[in-house]
Amino acid sequence: MRIPDHIGLIPDGNRRWAQREGFNKEKGYMFGLIPGVKVFKLCEKLGVKEITYYGFTTDNTKRPKLQRKAFTDACVKAVNMLSKEDASLLVLGNTRSQMFPKELLPYTFKRKKFGNGGIKVNFLVNYGWEWDLANLKENNSTNRKTIKKNINSYDVSRIDLIIRWGGRRRLSGFLPVQSVYSDFYVVNDYWPDFKEKQFYDALKWYDDQDITLGG
Amino acid sequence: MRIPDHIGLIPDGNRRWAQREGFNKEKGYMFGLIPGVKVFKLCEKLGVKEITYYGFTTDNTKRPKLQRKAFTDACVKAVNMLSKEDASLLVLGNTRSQMFPKELLPYTFKRKKFGNGGIKVNFLVNYGWEWDLANLKENNSTNRKTIKKNINSYDVSRIDLIIRWGGRRRLSGFLPVQSVYSDFYVVNDYWPDFKEKQFYDALKWYDDQDITLGG
Repeated sequence: MRIPDHIGLIPDGNRRWAQREGFNKEKGYMFGLIPGVKVFKLCEKLGVKEITYYGFTTDNTKRPKLQRKAFTDACVKAVNMLSKEDASLLVLGNTRSQMFPKELLPYTFKRKKFGNGGIKVNFLVNYGWEWDLANLKENNSTNRKTIKKNINSYDVSRIDLIIRWGGRRRLSGFLPVQSVYSDFYVVNDYWPDFKEKQFYDALKWYDDQDITLGG
Repeated sequence: MRIPDHIGLIPDGNRRWAQREGFNKEKGYMFGLIPGVKVFKLCEKLGVKEITYYGFTTDNTKRPKLQRKAFTDACVKAVNMLSKEDASLLVLGNTRSQMFPKELLPYTFKRKKFGNGGIKVNFLVNYGWEWDLANLKENNSTNRKTIKKNINSYDVSRIDLIIRWGGRRRLSGFLPVQSVYSDFYVVNDYWPDFKEKQFYDALKWYDDQDITLGG
């Protein structure tokens, strides 16, 4: 089976899951932590080289304060959990804003090795596509490498497969430059309902795709 | 029914259609012309305000010369056909490259009104995401409007719904900035097999989507 080098994960549906279970909306996020580690372990086992988790975006911060606090806390916990694994971690997002949790600042700017390094893991926190493109130089060049070097997420590779939980078929601002040729797979179940089978189904689907990159 | 203001169309599968019909691959493109006008008429009827057609990309030009000639000719014909309608037309793409058909130069740079203007129609020809982002100024600002104003496709609005024919679930470089929140619907049939029902099914699906823009 053809394994993608880089998988992007959009773990959506936490609030809808919470409501279905009779909890307040903001309670859903913490139930997404274990799935996050499970996916990591699966990727490790299968030889995936890079994973990007969509934590929260600058748009998400417009939500009610209780929810904002809950998803921010969940992201802090998730990054701490991943730092116990063999991972080369980088947190990306607008650190100049008050919405960025200070606890995660040590993970920004430069990728940090934990354990034996292992998989490259990117975690988007207070990320916005506008933040990502904000420092692009006016080079008047249509050279992709030059553009890629000048975006804020320059250390994130092209994504082969994006898996989104929660049924929605949109990118919601997820890494526009790295996603241009990504194959996009949608799981209808909510993220806290993560099951290994969903992940394997996505990989099986990806294996059937014809990668042409426009050629 | 909630009608999208702006629909993006990725008319894929022309070559696979041609092969299935026993033609050479490059013969498929011409069979995509009538569907293109049919979609236009449907949008007109339903009150869609803007349509973007994905013609060909800078990546597509790496294909064999015969194919390149065929899809370029089809794009020239398509734009000419649309100029017979009530449309406000703009062709977007890298005009400095030899791959850009000279016949379409009059449609570039400034939007042109045909008939009573009607729908805003954008047609991407020798388009590349790298071309689109190439002139972004180093403004160090995370203001979306500033970024949007400085990309080459600044006159193209945010896309509500993208419909891709031909079964592939990826954007293939289609307007990364305008697509950040687009709902993405995939038709498995090839573009020359266009049927009104596919289009209405996409609209029906779109009507069920919950538009949150991250909120």
